[in-house]
Amino acid sequence: MSDDEVTRQMGSRITQHRDRFQDLFQKYFAQLHASSDAPELSRFAPECLRMVEELALRGGKRQRVAFAYEAANLVPGGAMTVKAVDIAALSIELLQAHLLIHDDIIDNAATRRGGPSTYYAYRDKFPDHPQHALGFAVLAGDLALVLSQQVITEAGLDPWLAQSMAAVQNTAGLSTFIGQVFDLERDFLGVPEEELLHSVCDFKAARSSALAPLQLGLLAAEQDPKEHEPTLRRYSTSFGISGQMRDDYLSLFGNEEVTGKPATADVADGRVTYLIRRTLLAASESEQKILSSVLGHAGATQTDVDKVREIVTAHRVDQSLLADMRRFAELASTEAEQWASWAEADAVAFFRDVPVWGVQRLL
Amino acid sequence: MSDDEVTRQMGSRITQHRDRFQDLFQKYFAQLHASSDAPELSRFAPECLRMVEELALRGGKRQRVAFAYEAANLVPGGAMTVKAVDIAALSIELLQAHLLIHDDIIDNAATRRGGPSTYYAYRDKFPDHPQHALGFAVLAGDLALVLSQQVITEAGLDPWLAQSMAAVQNTAGLSTFIGQVFDLERDFLGVPEEELLHSVCDFKAARSSALAPLQLGLLAAEQDPKEHEPTLRRYSTSFGISGQMRDDYLSLFGNEEVTGKPATADVADGRVTYLIRRTLLAASESEQKILSSVLGHAGATQTDVDKVREIVTAHRVDQSLLADMRRFAELASTEAEQWASWAEADAVAFFRDVPVWGVQRLL
Repeated sequence: MSDDEVTRQMGSRITQHRDRFQDLFQKYFAQLHASSDAPELSRFAPECLRMVEELALRGGKRQRVAFAYEAANLVPGGAMTVKAVDIAALSIELLQAHLLIHDDIIDNAATRRGGPSTYYAYRDKFPDHPQHALGFAVLAGDLALVLSQQVITEAGLDPWLAQSMAAVQNTAGLSTFIGQVFDLERDFLGVPEEELLHSVCDFKAARSSALAPLQLGLLAAEQDPKEHEPTLRRYSTSFGISGQMRDDYLSLFGNEEVTGKPATADVADGRVTYLIRRTLLAASESEQKILSSVLGHAGATQTDVDKVREIVTAHRVDQSLLADMRRFAELASTEAEQWASWAEADAVAFFRDVPVWGVQRLL
Repeated sequence: MSDDEVTRQMGSRITQHRDRFQDLFQKYFAQLHASSDAPELSRFAPECLRMVEELALRGGKRQRVAFAYEAANLVPGGAMTVKAVDIAALSIELLQAHLLIHDDIIDNAATRRGGPSTYYAYRDKFPDHPQHALGFAVLAGDLALVLSQQVITEAGLDPWLAQSMAAVQNTAGLSTFIGQVFDLERDFLGVPEEELLHSVCDFKAARSSALAPLQLGLLAAEQDPKEHEPTLRRYSTSFGISGQMRDDYLSLFGNEEVTGKPATADVADGRVTYLIRRTLLAASESEQKILSSVLGHAGATQTDVDKVREIVTAHRVDQSLLADMRRFAELASTEAEQWASWAEADAVAFFRDVPVWGVQRLL
C-alpha cells in the first residue's frame, strides 16, 4: 500500500472515531449542565462550565481518542468494553482541555484550536478586569482537571478498573506538569542539547497524548498495560518526538488553518524548538544577529517570520528536521509491528501506520 | 465545663492530631522526592515540588485533619483504620495546598500562612520574568491537585474505598472551584443579600474544609457517609458560615500573627464580606463616601483600616457579626449532638465542642 493510500485510510478511520466521540462528548456536557450542583444565585458558575465545554468540543482530529479506541481493539475479544473505553476517551479529552486552558495562561496565548483561548475569551468578556479574567481562566482549567477524574469515578465501572484508570490519568497529569515546568526552564538554559528537548517532549506531550490513551484503552479491554510497559513507552516517546518535530516545522512553515494559531506566534514566543535550536547552531554570526533581533519579541510580524524561514532553509534545517521526524515515525512503526505476537492484527496495523499518517499530514 | 475549659481541651486534642499528621506529611514528601519521576536534566521540576511542600508543611492548626481523624472515631470500632484515615488526611491537605496556591494567583495575594504565597515566592525568584513566575505557580497548584488524587489511588487501599474517597475529593474540588467563581462574581453584584454570601461560603469553604473531611473519615472507618448526608451537610454549612464570619471579623480586627496576612489586605481587596456588607448597609452617606474611598484601593494603609474599623464599631456591626457567628456555631453543635444515636460519644463531643472552640479562638 502506498503512503497516500495509508494516509487516506487512516484519515477515514480516525474520523470515524472522532465523529462517534464528538456525539458522546456533547451528550456528556448536556448531562453535566442538567445535573450540575451550581448555586442557584450564580450566573458565572454555569458559564465557567460552558467555557470548558466550548474549548473541549472545539477539538481537532482527536488523535488521543483514536488511540484509546484502537488500543482497546488490540486486545483479543476486547471490543465488548464500549462503556469503559468511552469513559477513558472522555477523561482523556477533559484532561487535554485542562492542559490547554492552563497552557494558554502560562504562555499568555490568545488563540487555540482556531478560536480564542479560554484566557482570552475571559479577557474579552471582562476587558476592565484582567485579574478577574485570569482568575476565571485558572478556575475553568481546574474544573476541567477534576472533571477528567470525576468522569472515571462516577461511571459505575468496576472499582479496580476505575482506580487503575484514575491512576493512569494522575500519572499522565503529573508527567505533563513536570514537562511544562521543564519547558519553561528551557528559556533560562540558552541552546540546549537535543536530548533535553526529547525529554521535554516525552514528559510534556508523549505521556498524556500517546502513552496514557494506549494504557487506558488496554485497561478498558481488561488487559493490564503494565505487561507491555516498556514497548508502550518506546512507541509513545518516538511517536511523540516525531509529532513534536512536525509541530515545530508547522509552526513556521504550516498553514494557519491547520495549526490553529498564527505563524508569528512561535517567533514571538522565541522558545528554542527543535527547528530553532538547529537553526541557531547552524547560523552565521550575521544570521545570529537577525535571529536574536526577531525571536522572542512580542510584536513579531510576517516579515520577521520570513527572515527566520530564510535562514532555516538556507541551512537546510527544515530538510534535516523532516528527515528526523520520519526516522522517529519509523521507530514507532517498527515498535508497533512487534505487538502482533499478542494483539489483534487490525489494531496493530493502525498503530504501525498512524506515525506515517502523522508525518504525511503536513505535506 | 466552662467555655475556657472546652477551648483548652479542644486545643490540645487538635494539636495532637496536628503533630501526628505533620510527621506523616513530612515523610510523604521525603518519599515523593525520592521516588519522583522528574527528568534528570531539570532543576526546576524538583524545585516546583519543593514549593508545594514548603506551603503544604507550613500549615496552621490543621482543623481539616482533626475532622477526618475524629470522624473515623465516630464509627464504633472504626479506630482500626489508621492507614485509610492517614491517606484521607494527606489528600485533604494536598487539595488544600492546591486551593491556596491557585487562590493566591486569583487574588494576586503576596502572603499566606505567615509567609510568601507560592505565586510571590516565584515572583521573588524570577523578578525579571513575571509571566514565567505565573506559569510556575499555576503548575505548582496543578501538581498539588493531582497529588491529592494520586495519594488515594496509589495507597493500595481496597478499590471500592479508594474510588469512594477519590469521588469525595472530586466533589469537594468541584464545589470549591464553583464557590471561587461565585466569590469573584460578587465583585460585579454590588451589595448582595446575605443568603448569597452563605451560598458562596458553603461552596467555597464548608464543603472542602468540613464536609469532605467528615465524609472521608467515615469512609476510612468503613461507614458509608451517604447514610448521614443531610445532617453532615447541615453541620458543615453552619460550621463553615460561623468560621467565615470569624475570618471576616479577624481580617479587620485580628492579630496579623494569627491571620497570617496583613490587616490591610482585605481592605485593599475590597471584597464585600459579611462584615463589610453589613457596614455598607448601616453607614451614613458621609461614611459611605469614606468606605468607597478606601475599600478596594491597592495602596490601603493602616490609617484606612482604622477608618473602616471606626465605622464598623460605630454601628456595632462587629457585635452583630459576633452574635451571628455564635448562633451558627450553636446550630452546628446542636446538629452534632444528635449523632449520639449512631456514633461514639467521645467523637460526638469533639464535633459538638469544636464550633465553640472556633468561636473562642478570636478572643
